[in-house]
Amino acid sequence: MIEPYTQLSLHRWMLLDEVRNEAYRKAIVAAVKPGDVVLDMGAGTGILSIFAAQAGARKVYAVERTGIAAVARKMVARNGLADRIEIIEGNLEDIDLPEKVDVLMSEWMGGLGVDENMLAPFVMARNRWLKPTGKILPERVTAFLAPVWMRFFDDDLNHWRKTPHGVDMNVIAEITAHEPLMTQHPIGPEDILSTPQQMWSHDAYTCSLQEADRSFQTKLSFVAERSGKLSNVATWFEATFFESALLSTAPDAPQTHWGRFVFPLDRAVDVEKGTRIDVEFHCDPSSPGSCEFFWSVKIGDLPVEKHDSRGVAREA
Amino acid sequence: MIEPYTQLSLHRWMLLDEVRNEAYRKAIVAAVKPGDVVLDMGAGTGILSIFAAQAGARKVYAVERTGIAAVARKMVARNGLADRIEIIEGNLEDIDLPEKVDVLMSEWMGGLGVDENMLAPFVMARNRWLKPTGKILPERVTAFLAPVWMRFFDDDLNHWRKTPHGVDMNVIAEITAHEPLMTQHPIGPEDILSTPQQMWSHDAYTCSLQEADRSFQTKLSFVAERSGKLSNVATWFEATFFESALLSTAPDAPQTHWGRFVFPLDRAVDVEKGTRIDVEFHCDPSSPGSCEFFWSVKIGDLPVEKHDSRGVAREA
Repeated sequence: MIEPYTQLSLHRWMLLDEVRNEAYRKAIVAAVKPGDVVLDMGAGTGILSIFAAQAGARKVYAVERTGIAAVARKMVARNGLADRIEIIEGNLEDIDLPEKVDVLMSEWMGGLGVDENMLAPFVMARNRWLKPTGKILPERVTAFLAPVWMRFFDDDLNHWRKTPHGVDMNVIAEITAHEPLMTQHPIGPEDILSTPQQMWSHDAYTCSLQEADRSFQTKLSFVAERSGKLSNVATWFEATFFESALLSTAPDAPQTHWGRFVFPLDRAVDVEKGTRIDVEFHCDPSSPGSCEFFWSVKIGDLPVEKHDSRGVAREA
Repeated sequence: MIEPYTQLSLHRWMLLDEVRNEAYRKAIVAAVKPGDVVLDMGAGTGILSIFAAQAGARKVYAVERTGIAAVARKMVARNGLADRIEIIEGNLEDIDLPEKVDVLMSEWMGGLGVDENMLAPFVMARNRWLKPTGKILPERVTAFLAPVWMRFFDDDLNHWRKTPHGVDMNVIAEITAHEPLMTQHPIGPEDILSTPQQMWSHDAYTCSLQEADRSFQTKLSFVAERSGKLSNVATWFEATFFESALLSTAPDAPQTHWGRFVFPLDRAVDVEKGTRIDVEFHCDPSSPGSCEFFWSVKIGDLPVEKHDSRGVAREA
């Protein structure tokens, strides 16, 4: 019985995220022409489908894998759009549509772009259902990474290392140091030690299934542009839309429900300006909506730190 | 792979809850004598077992149903206590101990005392494993309820009723109004419309299996002691320990990781001083660690409001 609430909690956060809603709404108003047929992939509560119907879509196929589809069905009925929006509960790979679509839209991005494992189904849906002249929202998603300082990470790890009540809690510190975290903690410009670099970028029109259906890996080399402390690497994405502005989860963009997806080091390290920081990063699909992560960081001459979310989980 | 982290997140909150830790630690120091045998039921990361070993226990049996037992095992080893604390991964009902125990301890309370469904296993463990002269921590748990005003509930429901972007989101409001919520939002003395009343109370020494293994229901009748707004009912518990102070999650007690477990009305209602407020409340076990809730509220002459967490979930 918990599941429906858990699901709604998540969707409630998304529905409250006006930066996200407005980016999609503007893009949908620009892209969807009266009479268009639209496919909404991973429709959630159906909000984007309703935007598309408001923009004049003749028909919207709203495909949703999870039980939140029942909420979408009610939302659509309550808005008097049941004749134009069809909620289809199931996997996109398994469904059959009676026609091709003018617009394929989806909010398929996790905190670092690809970590919800929806890129490959998205590409398959495009290949199968989009008209040759069809439009895609968003049209490009790019992920970025930077070495940063976030005090709360340092405070958190130090707490577990303090032997509270005479109890050795280093086990908790060690597990914490291997845990990726979605966080709303802000990252100021002074906390970014080196100019962010691109991890990967996907063009929704040209991305092949081979490019989409895989582990995502990157190796990046930074040089510290200031002296400071380094506690973790931070990742985010930018999505660009048809005739529309950016949806960005970067540290200097307006806050969204995504926050930043961050990956800790074992402990905060003092870094001198000019120090080289090498980062290797993998994001491997595990189950639907979830990835396993590997990240290694080498700071100047210090030994390489390797962090594996799987290793810890298995060990734990 | 998500599960171990989710589990640890929860346990991390508990480990950071110094009010909880200190209440148990003081009670353990007072109750556990050198040479005692202790049963820790639902041991989590093993922190209470470590306190018991620090207090001189000869042997601690730490029973934990979930995978967090692996973390407990590491914690115990790292603290050099593997010879005295035995981590047993499994259900308490299924395990067999080689001896009876001097102290039975458990942190079995959910937000309103009984909602983690651990009272019945606790009573069974007591009947089976506790020596006649044995001690129990905590010795009594009492749940309370009061009609209160919490602005965030009202703001939240009103947001969904505002037709944002021209979209009717009353479906979200309706689901939200049936959702119990654990929240850290404070409740000031001026927000409590009537003196809190006891929902139920359980003596750990005398509670029978029949009393423990059931749905928990109560009917309470309040009279508003001031005029004000009423948005929800709030629940909390008080646990008392052997020769020790209280662990309380009441609004005026120091903040804990539990916060308050609160249950919304459909919408905030203005209530005049002297108005009668009748509350009926059920907490029914569903799966391990989870309950389903029914609450109905009648304010003066207004129609009775009935809220059922199951009904919504089923409908949704």
